Amino acid sequence: MNKHGGYTGNNQEMLDFSININPLGIPKRVKNRLIQGIDDLVNYPEISGQSSIEKLAKDIDINSENIVLGNGAIELIYLFARSQTKGKVLIIQPTFNEYERALKLYGWETEDYILEKSNNFRINPDELIQKIEKIQPQAVFFCNPNNPTGCVYSRVFVSDLVKASSKDLIWFIDESFMEFTKEDDNLPLIKNGDNLVFLLRSLTKFYALPGLRIGYGIGSESIIKKMVKYKEPWTINGLGLIAVGLAYDEKDFQKQTKDYISSERDRVYQELNKIKSIQVFKSGTDFHLCQLKQGTVKDLQIYLENHGINIRTCEDFKGLDDSYFRIAIKKQENNQQLLEELKKWRG
Amino acid sequence: MNKHGGYTGNNQEMLDFSININPLGIPKRVKNRLIQGIDDLVNYPEISGQSSIEKLAKDIDINSENIVLGNGAIELIYLFARSQTKGKVLIIQPTFNEYERALKLYGWETEDYILEKSNNFRINPDELIQKIEKIQPQAVFFCNPNNPTGCVYSRVFVSDLVKASSKDLIWFIDESFMEFTKEDDNLPLIKNGDNLVFLLRSLTKFYALPGLRIGYGIGSESIIKKMVKYKEPWTINGLGLIAVGLAYDEKDFQKQTKDYISSERDRVYQELNKIKSIQVFKSGTDFHLCQLKQGTVKDLQIYLENHGINIRTCEDFKGLDDSYFRIAIKKQENNQQLLEELKKWRG
Repeated sequence: MNKHGGYTGNNQEMLDFSININPLGIPKRVKNRLIQGIDDLVNYPEISGQSSIEKLAKDIDINSENIVLGNGAIELIYLFARSQTKGKVLIIQPTFNEYERALKLYGWETEDYILEKSNNFRINPDELIQKIEKIQPQAVFFCNPNNPTGCVYSRVFVSDLVKASSKDLIWFIDESFMEFTKEDDNLPLIKNGDNLVFLLRSLTKFYALPGLRIGYGIGSESIIKKMVKYKEPWTINGLGLIAVGLAYDEKDFQKQTKDYISSERDRVYQELNKIKSIQVFKSGTDFHLCQLKQGTVKDLQIYLENHGINIRTCEDFKGLDDSYFRIAIKKQENNQQLLEELKKWRG
Repeated sequence: MNKHGGYTGNNQEMLDFSININPLGIPKRVKNRLIQGIDDLVNYPEISGQSSIEKLAKDIDINSENIVLGNGAIELIYLFARSQTKGKVLIIQPTFNEYERALKLYGWETEDYILEKSNNFRINPDELIQKIEKIQPQAVFFCNPNNPTGCVYSRVFVSDLVKASSKDLIWFIDESFMEFTKEDDNLPLIKNGDNLVFLLRSLTKFYALPGLRIGYGIGSESIIKKMVKYKEPWTINGLGLIAVGLAYDEKDFQKQTKDYISSERDRVYQELNKIKSIQVFKSGTDFHLCQLKQGTVKDLQIYLENHGINIRTCEDFKGLDDSYFRIAIKKQENNQQLLEELKKWRG
């Protein structure tokens, strides 16, 4: 399997900056309902979670035919890969490495559009559209905000990109980190219905529930229909179905998280910027991509591990190398601890 | 999606005989550990559950390379279908309807060996071997104990069948209901290693955890290797991983369940046998297949529903028709209530 954050995360004593989970933890009401839900595990979950789909459809104001639930967002990446008519696919890199594994496993021919450091890893829309016109893919995989760069694009930027491309092209847009940003999501693209779009969402990060495995996708009806054909029964556990029904009621938690992440992200960015050995890239979400100006991250990683801190080294991301690392925004005292160690370190 | 038991089971007031879940409920220690585990949902589960695999391997005394975990047994049926070299497959029918859906979805050519009522739906081994030799399938799907007939075959019977067939043939043996029986499982076939065998297991039924989605497979290394290649990351949630590590420590619970099911199954069988309108088939596990001697089950189903009872009608099983139904062994007072209604009913 691919490399991921949290890979040395079994040591509970470690401060794990390699996983990007909401530092506010699981919302209290959700946690209490999950504890109550343990008794209900003696019952089968609904076979495809229809009641939770309908609640969610109401919450985000879209038809239930546009929604599919997943055993984590990850199920939906693989389900997409095996259910849609396969062909050529363009992946905007560096990005989450499971897209490529899933797509290759099911016979897609992958091509990369590799973002440049010289442009702060941001998309050049004209260049991207040209590339799409040249290689004529069936689908584009686009993570927004992007993991691991933290780049986030506005609704208008994404919408312009999508509309400039052929109506037969599927845009797979991973919005797993969108709720941490101040940008708007791209739901109108689906309501609008002119293009083929699939938005991937997850409760993993924002609701701090990676252990529960719950995600969902919102897509054009023709995409969802094919996914449902290949969908396996009972993939979402009973507690996951409870959580998805409660998530959108957590308005206070959502606001608190957005506010905290936004201000703490800016603070951490300023502090990182002061450290001479590190270049930090502007992020719109709950983590930062950093680069060592000299040497490889290996030594820094060992130093931090010895001080109880885990980071995500990024040598396995296409377009990056062993000078890059990614760090999550955690609680302020934790971030401070990391910053102090980074300041102390002499590479 | 296919039809399944529990399909009208959302009405919590109903006594649901359509799902075959251990009436003793979730083992107490397991339930307590699950409640404690809610706090850990903020952490990612291990990507393929390696620690739980190793605990399980020790518990059942087999190499960890022979084990794969699943998001319920169902994930492993689909994972098998898409990971093994596809070809012709023989399904012993009537049986669980997801085998056929999974296999067809991934391009297998399915053939049926249909069990005969005249033989109490038991396999005729010579006939089955002949059929295998004639059609030369890549795999045979065999549910033991069989759902919905309740037939269970001894270790010797199964072992003789497997050994009589070609060493290239994969035997997919679903043992989801084995722990309710007094028979031995077929683990030695895998330890022995002469044939290609995959045993499917589930915590769903025996540990009363259908809401948690946790199953596992034990198979010849070459089968497991292919499955791992197609396995998706993080398919098993954190609580499922806790449960699989605890299951085999529940020796008292296992014995209590086996004893209760065995004696109550016999009692219910005797009582059903006294009801003139019904023929009941001998079962070795936690449910009975029954047939109305006259008419269709539809009327009986409506009658029972009006009395708060749900049963599994079996018209969708190959080789059965609308005169058959399946009923689970539940708590004695519940079984008694069903028996009273069946006695009162005049079809």
